[in-house]
Amino acid sequence: MENFVVGIDIGGTKLATVVADVSGRIISKVREPTHANKGPEYVLQLLVDMVYQTIKQAELELKDISAIGVSCGGPLDTKTGIVYSPPNLPGWVAFPLKEKLEFEFRIPVKIENDANACALAEYRFGGGRGYKSVLYMTMSTGIGGGIVLNGQVYHGVNDSAGEVGHQILLPDGPLCGCGKRGCLESLCSGPAIARRAKEAIQAAVSQSVILNLADGEVDAVKSEHVLLAAKKGDTLALELIDETAYYMGWGIANLVNILNPDIVLLGTIAIAAGDLLLEPIRKTVSSFAMTRPAEAVTIMPAQLGESLGDLAAVSLVV
Amino acid sequence: MENFVVGIDIGGTKLATVVADVSGRIISKVREPTHANKGPEYVLQLLVDMVYQTIKQAELELKDISAIGVSCGGPLDTKTGIVYSPPNLPGWVAFPLKEKLEFEFRIPVKIENDANACALAEYRFGGGRGYKSVLYMTMSTGIGGGIVLNGQVYHGVNDSAGEVGHQILLPDGPLCGCGKRGCLESLCSGPAIARRAKEAIQAAVSQSVILNLADGEVDAVKSEHVLLAAKKGDTLALELIDETAYYMGWGIANLVNILNPDIVLLGTIAIAAGDLLLEPIRKTVSSFAMTRPAEAVTIMPAQLGESLGDLAAVSLVV
Repeated sequence: MENFVVGIDIGGTKLATVVADVSGRIISKVREPTHANKGPEYVLQLLVDMVYQTIKQAELELKDISAIGVSCGGPLDTKTGIVYSPPNLPGWVAFPLKEKLEFEFRIPVKIENDANACALAEYRFGGGRGYKSVLYMTMSTGIGGGIVLNGQVYHGVNDSAGEVGHQILLPDGPLCGCGKRGCLESLCSGPAIARRAKEAIQAAVSQSVILNLADGEVDAVKSEHVLLAAKKGDTLALELIDETAYYMGWGIANLVNILNPDIVLLGTIAIAAGDLLLEPIRKTVSSFAMTRPAEAVTIMPAQLGESLGDLAAVSLVV
Repeated sequence: MENFVVGIDIGGTKLATVVADVSGRIISKVREPTHANKGPEYVLQLLVDMVYQTIKQAELELKDISAIGVSCGGPLDTKTGIVYSPPNLPGWVAFPLKEKLEFEFRIPVKIENDANACALAEYRFGGGRGYKSVLYMTMSTGIGGGIVLNGQVYHGVNDSAGEVGHQILLPDGPLCGCGKRGCLESLCSGPAIARRAKEAIQAAVSQSVILNLADGEVDAVKSEHVLLAAKKGDTLALELIDETAYYMGWGIANLVNILNPDIVLLGTIAIAAGDLLLEPIRKTVSSFAMTRPAEAVTIMPAQLGESLGDLAAVSLVV
């Protein structure tokens, strides 16, 4: 039959395997914690078991599966299928994931970095349907990106394209996880928003409900508290959201000038914040980008929500 | 026979028409001033005459020509062939250049904005040969860009991709020709380098031979004088070059993170300056870009020199 595919989503904390039909409908799903600290061979064996279990749960057999799509943190090589030490998967030093999975299942395996796979899923099944050039940007612990041009993930020459969160806006700005200063990620990721909130609270520039929402503990302040406080109309929180929107809008304007996409889809924090964040982002983009590309672009929250990770892996093979 | 093509290069001050064989070898060439102020119909008639003359000069006839490639300042629509008011061609308001040329010659016409056409020419015949993803950046009156991915010009959704010179680095920086502030172009174009030189000379921060090279007239200082002075070891000129390299390197690092090209080719000023400018640019890129894309990229001067404009138009149709 071969009318079904397997999707594998490898995160730093969670693993998921799904079986889907060729239209992308999820039929069965298995979840497990990653146990990343136990190394790649352990995780591989766990994934293999999960795949068999997911197929069984779908009342199918291995022979019904035509391909396996894997969404995994990069850097990785999409051609060889080798994973190169993603920050969230310690010990995965040049791990030949595609080869190992193909050896086990004797089925073609396609590996893609998670941001690219999410971009493809949004293009195929989510907010990017019907658009030609889709830029997807995560906005959570980090700011990653995936670029889909004319229906294809754009990889660049060594699978490193789309590092949109590491464009530098303020070379003397805050230290980023990548080791540089003032990357978009160091200004607009969840931890960056939280850091700016903590600094403002500690400087006691104004009263804010952010601290109350974090049970009075400055160190416990998270971007979620800032969002919640902003929705309640808290002045400091609204300033922090505006500042975030300014930097995001600036970064997106540069991307719009370079890539001229017809849609930019923003994940996680942008979904939670909605127009509170998106409206000032759109305003900054239309003031910072060139007129023609700015007129051509729509900026929206990503649409797949909870199912994004599953569909990311599946979209690689359907 | 149809083994020959015509290339038309439309600049704000000069027009050129060439006949080339299908390998890109130029056989004949005619040049004229543009007379841009006389409007598009006048320029069109001039171009038509030039094309006939160029074909005659090549000892060919119209029936030997298989296609016409046109390189022209944008914005323009590559599908409809309509040119939309390029800054250097006043009065070209939605001018249907492709349609008019096809009506005249009854031969397929392909129109491309000049930076994209130059990128394609460098990919086909110049410094980009053998590379997969080529980013070409002009560095003269303005900073334009063309992106060739897997052998194809990347246009974006409405032919506005590649506006690499209008990524904003300093939102409170100098006013750019585009109306925004602190674009890469406002910091690193020829006029921007000259402006910074004039400011430094007027502030009398140091003695410099730049002023002597401009015959003692501050208002006459050009980027060429800065380059020449830098080559003589002039301190101020070297500082200006280093500052230019810093901003160029910063902008290119962002592009390298986003596009992951295997080669970046820099035109005009970078060709004239050579390693004096390129070495500090390379250093900034390797310190500002992510490791993997930085390792994959080569940064070089463009190679086609004087013949770039001719080959730009020709490369569209061979």
